[in-house]
Amino acid sequence: MREDIAVLTIAFYIAITAEAMTAALAAGRRKMDWFGVCLLACVTALGGGTIRDILLDHYPLVWVENPYLLLLVCGAAMLTIPLARLVDRLKWPFLLLDALGLVVFTVIGCNIGIEAGAHPMISIVAGMITGIAGGILRDVLCNDIPLVFQGELYATVSIITGAVYFLGLGWGLPVDLLVIGSIAIGFTLRVLALVFKWEMPRFVYDREMRK
Amino acid sequence: MREDIAVLTIAFYIAITAEAMTAALAAGRRKMDWFGVCLLACVTALGGGTIRDILLDHYPLVWVENPYLLLLVCGAAMLTIPLARLVDRLKWPFLLLDALGLVVFTVIGCNIGIEAGAHPMISIVAGMITGIAGGILRDVLCNDIPLVFQGELYATVSIITGAVYFLGLGWGLPVDLLVIGSIAIGFTLRVLALVFKWEMPRFVYDREMRK
Amino acid sequence: MREDIAVLTIAFYIAITAEAMTAALAAGRRKMDWFGVCLLACVTALGGGTIRDILLDHYPLVWVENPYLLLLVCGAAMLTIPLARLVDRLKWPFLLLDALGLVVFTVIGCNIGIEAGAHPMISIVAGMITGIAGGILRDVLCNDIPLVFQGELYATVSIITGAVYFLGLGWGLPVDLLVIGSIAIGFTLRVLALVFKWEMPRFVYDREMRK
Repeated sequence: MREDIAVLTIAFYIAITAEAMTAALAAGRRKMDWFGVCLLACVTALGGGTIRDILLDHYPLVWVENPYLLLLVCGAAMLTIPLARLVDRLKWPFLLLDALGLVVFTVIGCNIGIEAGAHPMISIVAGMITGIAGGILRDVLCNDIPLVFQGELYATVSIITGAVYFLGLGWGLPVDLLVIGSIAIGFTLRVLALVFKWEMPRFVYDREMRK
Repeated sequence: MREDIAVLTIAFYIAITAEAMTAALAAGRRKMDWFGVCLLACVTALGGGTIRDILLDHYPLVWVENPYLLLLVCGAAMLTIPLARLVDRLKWPFLLLDALGLVVFTVIGCNIGIEAGAHPMISIVAGMITGIAGGILRDVLCNDIPLVFQGELYATVSIITGAVYFLGLGWGLPVDLLVIGSIAIGFTLRVLALVFKWEMPRFVYDREMRK
Repeated sequence: MREDIAVLTIAFYIAITAEAMTAALAAGRRKMDWFGVCLLACVTALGGGTIRDILLDHYPLVWVENPYLLLLVCGAAMLTIPLARLVDRLKWPFLLLDALGLVVFTVIGCNIGIEAGAHPMISIVAGMITGIAGGILRDVLCNDIPLVFQGELYATVSIITGAVYFLGLGWGLPVDLLVIGSIAIGFTLRVLALVFKWEMPRFVYDREMRK
């Protein structure tokens, strides 16, 4: 296995485990049953890649080809139940793991877009969908307006990571260097956004309410 | 037609009719118009199989191949409007029909997973999606947190039915016996869960609220 | 390019631009950030065609094949931010553009159904999904019960437009005449429904609440 692929694979497993655990906490806050905990974890951790593959007609889906991913995600989610207080206290480690997941999913999604022969713009969108759509599905199932629309520099980090990756490919940089480089840039950007609370501008239009 | 298939087909038509009628009641409780009644019925009755087929890349979809299913579902939904009080009073018959639908959809979904060459674990998941995803879509469109996450022994019955079915296949039991047997086991389990109010444990985590 | 196709193409671009702008206003009313504005616009303007193509296994998706559509939709959405008051005041022009979009999307969807070899009933459904599913996705992401279920004569206009189109095809009318004719009939019907506030009957069932 090439080194860049090994890095992506290991980071992918870490990231879906972390996403499953934070999704389980979200399920616990809504008093869901154990089945709901597992399903919400699967949708959050694997939903982004699933939507990407459906949009690109890229079959079989990752978890259909490798069903043990479902066991990993459900196992991580169930393990979160006795460890809830601990996981919740580890807020920063989980925010860092989530940031890692965002950029790793993005690079994986870009690669699948390239593999499917898509336009670079679509490959960047494929990366972004991989990074953010799981969280959107989680919020829809929890009956919330998706968090990703609420000002955090999150999807933007994914788009920038994808753009850096494609810029590097265009410049002919070696792929393994590029994978690690764009993950590092995207991760740093996301952490800076978290630390300094950088936000996307909002479009606030409340004329209707003033009527 | 083989006998096991005939049983599945008849039970399938009964089940989607019953699901269409209960979905129509849900639409009436939200004061939807006649179009909303029909659409909610279609999504509830046919949505599970649709999601399963999209995930498995199994085309054409059931209702695309057999569009008269749409007429059946919409007809049953519209018929529910004048009969609403009656349907609502027949709570137990409809709970039994829903239980039948759950296990029948599960076995049909398992068979389609097998047909698509999926791993047994994925085929059981395909059965479960067939059984429960229509109700999840209904709840999302009605702006509720899906009922299936709220403690009832519902998805679990579907998973057990699928596991029994695969266990039997592994033991080399005849398929027609197995179809009827696993439907009987799943149905009995679901009815027992309803009668004795068996529930899945919940994961209740409200630290956030106590802050 | 044939004349009927040119008319459809021009109307398609006008319609997705208008849908992107009204979706951006909806995002502004929920105080979404700029990314949310763009994503909600993309989902609203392109979501109907995307769902139709996934259901019919008709790939590549329109915006995957023509990624510049994403730039058009995001551009129109971002332009709405400084122009919000103006766009909001132009209520009637936008209602007319939305009506145009509904019927144009319907005819385009019917044609793709025919192209995919679907049953006429499914092609009409494909037209309706193209016309209304983007708005349903928008409402789900905004955490509302979809507007299309709330009594307006909207989806019905789409179904009638599709039925007129197929009736004409059956009578052997020339396609270019038929495209323009069914768009004109559907558009007129929608405008009449808006002016005279025609509504679908609702199914109101509130026995549960009276308990």
